[in-house]
Amino acid sequence: MSDYRAPLSDMRFVMDKLAGFAELSSQVPAFAEATPDMADAILDEAAKFTEQVLAPLNAVGDKEGCQLTEHGVTTPTGWKAAYQNFCDAGWNGITGPADFEGHGQPDTLGVAVREMVASANLSFSLCPMLTFGAVQALITCASDELKATYLARMVTGEWTGTMNLTEPQAGSDLALIRSRAEPQPDGSYRVFGQKIFITYGDHDLTDNIVHLVLARLPDAPPGVRGISLFLVPKFLVNDDGSLGERNDAQCVSIEHKLGIHASPTCVLAFGDNGGAVGYLLGEANRGLEYMFVMMNEARLGVGLQGVALGERAYQLALAYARERKQGRDAVTGDALVTLDKHPDIRRMLMLMKSRVEASRALAYVAAGMLDRAHAHPDPETRKHNLMLAEFMIPLVKGGATEMSIDVTSLGIQVHGGMGFIEETGAAQHWRDARITTIYEGTTGIQANDLIFRKLMRDGGATAHAVFAQISETAEALRSSPRPDLQAIGNRLQQALNDWTEATAWVLARIKEDTAGVLSAAVPYLHLAASVCGGWQLGRAAQIAAHMLAQDTGDTRFLRAKIATAHFYADHVLSQAIGLKHSVCAGGDALAGLSADMLDV
Amino acid sequence: MSDYRAPLSDMRFVMDKLAGFAELSSQVPAFAEATPDMADAILDEAAKFTEQVLAPLNAVGDKEGCQLTEHGVTTPTGWKAAYQNFCDAGWNGITGPADFEGHGQPDTLGVAVREMVASANLSFSLCPMLTFGAVQALITCASDELKATYLARMVTGEWTGTMNLTEPQAGSDLALIRSRAEPQPDGSYRVFGQKIFITYGDHDLTDNIVHLVLARLPDAPPGVRGISLFLVPKFLVNDDGSLGERNDAQCVSIEHKLGIHASPTCVLAFGDNGGAVGYLLGEANRGLEYMFVMMNEARLGVGLQGVALGERAYQLALAYARERKQGRDAVTGDALVTLDKHPDIRRMLMLMKSRVEASRALAYVAAGMLDRAHAHPDPETRKHNLMLAEFMIPLVKGGATEMSIDVTSLGIQVHGGMGFIEETGAAQHWRDARITTIYEGTTGIQANDLIFRKLMRDGGATAHAVFAQISETAEALRSSPRPDLQAIGNRLQQALNDWTEATAWVLARIKEDTAGVLSAAVPYLHLAASVCGGWQLGRAAQIAAHMLAQDTGDTRFLRAKIATAHFYADHVLSQAIGLKHSVCAGGDALAGLSADMLDV
Repeated sequence: MSDYRAPLSDMRFVMDKLAGFAELSSQVPAFAEATPDMADAILDEAAKFTEQVLAPLNAVGDKEGCQLTEHGVTTPTGWKAAYQNFCDAGWNGITGPADFEGHGQPDTLGVAVREMVASANLSFSLCPMLTFGAVQALITCASDELKATYLARMVTGEWTGTMNLTEPQAGSDLALIRSRAEPQPDGSYRVFGQKIFITYGDHDLTDNIVHLVLARLPDAPPGVRGISLFLVPKFLVNDDGSLGERNDAQCVSIEHKLGIHASPTCVLAFGDNGGAVGYLLGEANRGLEYMFVMMNEARLGVGLQGVALGERAYQLALAYARERKQGRDAVTGDALVTLDKHPDIRRMLMLMKSRVEASRALAYVAAGMLDRAHAHPDPETRKHNLMLAEFMIPLVKGGATEMSIDVTSLGIQVHGGMGFIEETGAAQHWRDARITTIYEGTTGIQANDLIFRKLMRDGGATAHAVFAQISETAEALRSSPRPDLQAIGNRLQQALNDWTEATAWVLARIKEDTAGVLSAAVPYLHLAASVCGGWQLGRAAQIAAHMLAQDTGDTRFLRAKIATAHFYADHVLSQAIGLKHSVCAGGDALAGLSADMLDV
Repeated sequence: MSDYRAPLSDMRFVMDKLAGFAELSSQVPAFAEATPDMADAILDEAAKFTEQVLAPLNAVGDKEGCQLTEHGVTTPTGWKAAYQNFCDAGWNGITGPADFEGHGQPDTLGVAVREMVASANLSFSLCPMLTFGAVQALITCASDELKATYLARMVTGEWTGTMNLTEPQAGSDLALIRSRAEPQPDGSYRVFGQKIFITYGDHDLTDNIVHLVLARLPDAPPGVRGISLFLVPKFLVNDDGSLGERNDAQCVSIEHKLGIHASPTCVLAFGDNGGAVGYLLGEANRGLEYMFVMMNEARLGVGLQGVALGERAYQLALAYARERKQGRDAVTGDALVTLDKHPDIRRMLMLMKSRVEASRALAYVAAGMLDRAHAHPDPETRKHNLMLAEFMIPLVKGGATEMSIDVTSLGIQVHGGMGFIEETGAAQHWRDARITTIYEGTTGIQANDLIFRKLMRDGGATAHAVFAQISETAEALRSSPRPDLQAIGNRLQQALNDWTEATAWVLARIKEDTAGVLSAAVPYLHLAASVCGGWQLGRAAQIAAHMLAQDTGDTRFLRAKIATAHFYADHVLSQAIGLKHSVCAGGDALAGLSADMLDV
């Protein structure tokens, strides 16, 4: 199996040239110390750590998985030491608040580090990712006292965090949550209920775990407006900060899953023995609202997982294709050439590479928007960037995760029969990828968010602002003297026209034909994501051509960037018109279909 | 987990209305006894057997897998009894030659039975499938003596067969085969070499296994023209038909695979202890030619596996969507409706259903062509049908298997988080499907076969004959008074135009720009397969509308057939134009790409 190598050249190019990292440190005082030089040093260190420490444990984790013992969940061989190293090196708190022992780095850098961690070892990466989400929730709504007790220890990774939303009857629909919390005279609560699909709900990496739990108070209104958020530690914490009693929160089983075997997915029982001690976070009945605060980051994080898995699968497939000799060169007739000489293999490799790079660019650009939305000194800039980021996030989450299923599948295909053998490693990436379109909101939910919130809330104004920027990029490409840039520009303009037309169709029908628009939502998301990915690759090609003309930068890398954008334009942007047809067909064919007609 | 139910209504409709089963028994004397009534009875029995005996063992097989012990490979609990039942009931020889204890049924019926077996239990189905291939090879090239010894016992399933092609250095490229055979004074041979990826290369289902092995004679020319085919039994057979000595052919390991866990994939060592006794089949150096004789059936068989897995995944997803309550009805506002009421879930279910039915129709129609090619009394009809069948088979193999990966993935998606839990069963279908685009020739190899043999050999004449038929169907649909049929007809005509244009592009460049055409081959295959699938669904819709107008047949089924064709037209045929763009982009973006530009 090939080792993972962090794609530093592309990461730096995207951060610097597309996501505006340097401007961020000069324009945003909060990030004044995040200079490109410092970022370079951090990226180098992150590459070393993920390549050398985390990547080798990926296959081990897949094979061993986690076990539920009488002492709780145990992680695979080597996991605990790696986690300790990870925290000691400060990776857990890279973007965490400086007031609580974090490093306060911008997300635009954080996404690169998170991508590396997820590429090296997706199962491992889920633990800090969940902790990161819990940290954000505490920053948003915890009392100073709770912050003082918990926050720094979670930022450093000394303790980890979990998110307890799902219950057996309440998956995508949180209105159905039944867990309950009873107020106690001392101001604390007793929490009761069963939660499922709890990532890292129990483990042996740290000596405490901080569960954030959605539950209802006795007098809460029904539905989503009656859900509150509670902090329920695995071990209670004494006033001096030492660990106290074991709380009544137990892992009762772990799931046997298709992938991410080393990430324990737990069923947690709260209060089976009298009630789990919990503390209300923020105000009563606002739990879901607090959850939504971290939704952007969480969904961006899962989108990054898609990028990460695609990248790792690409590297593995490329290494195999370069080594394995099979067949004759179709053009030269040379006998016994390596697989990468065959045009169809090269097509697959380029499809992998171009889709991964398009998704990476869009994800990092979205992170740059989030950084500006959170920390830019100008309120208008903050607001504008928040609108843009929120528009992009369902595209990143939905687009990059669906991409990762396709790309990791191509990774298997490049290997031929060897891809089907587990020891090769290609299959694990595909299995791991399969969860990414499901958790943190399925692709269907991302598509609904895109249309019914992000598109509808301003009548398409943000969308049209994006269209204008894309059109500018397309125009610049089309006026280039280079035929390859012209080709990219033409495809981008055509695809943008298709997206614009589909958007008009959606906006025109959204109120009168909700069912039709809902059935067009996922194709619409794919259309939007592919055009935005092509937009970023188009920008990259334009910049690369400029740098080549100026004779700056790495020629090989820059020429590859243009060829990659060209390939994407020919093979992905070219599909936009078909997606437009799907969108605009709406629910026509479903309209006459009664439920019993689905029968076999 | 939902049980499998054989989709008898659709199978019968496709056989009768699309593949011309009734005409077959009236026009082809060899199939005179294969009347529709008899076929009905056989289908009913096959449904019962596969639903009750084979389907329940599918999950067991996935969980337990096979084991290599010191006595050879053992199959999972219940496997041996099921295999015995399968043979006793005569299923193994359903299309086998009547002279050798087969039932001599046409392939058009055989495919329906084979689909059911593969739906119920793909791992199980591989054993009779491989035996079926070996039987065809023996019919083609074995001496009367070898036939007398082996054939009937393989047709009944008393003994099974294997195909030994691949070696560690020789996968898709059989020119690289190194196994060798040394002639002995008694006219037999001693075979030496190692073969990998041998399906059911060893097992405990029967007391003998007949290996067909590709190897080189001492004086053989290099490359594919120097490969001969040998029969190497696991146990030698005495003159009286009783089993003799154990032969020198050993299973030395079995693979740990992503899917089809219960189908043992073996490394076989021939001749490690002095030489495996083998018998030359047919003439020396014609081994590959004999293998090609059974290629059509084998590839059709793997295409059917794609149909089978898609069908099973659809049934499982539909059952879950009908049972699981989650979320509000987007139109009526009703709280807590089942998943199948949500438009995006319905879109996914319809995408699954329509793609499975399109693939089934095309596969059965191809089987009908093969039956006529083999057994029609008129030589011209035989020849014409052989050309058509050979044109369709890469579309069935490549199209239906790629479909099965997408459709089984949708099956997981419909389940949400539950789809990622192995006990649900949806994941197994996806894992099992992943091998189908690889074995019996990867999708890339199917695409090359389509373009460089099937299209090129008659300068596109067969393709144009198919275009003319599709155009006729589209025209009939467009002239229907029903708007839904018109919509289907319009999409079909447009997609046909795209395919026609792409074909002209390919034929114009095939000689001067081989690399460009090769890199367009897989998109071309997808384009062709999707149009041919839409053609069959279009025919189905037309017939269904006619039957509804005549008030014959099952109204619910016929209306569903039209809605399904309409959905496919809107969501699959509509993508043809994008695929045409991909094809006609050819290798443009690859042309300037040097190998080092693929680097990370």
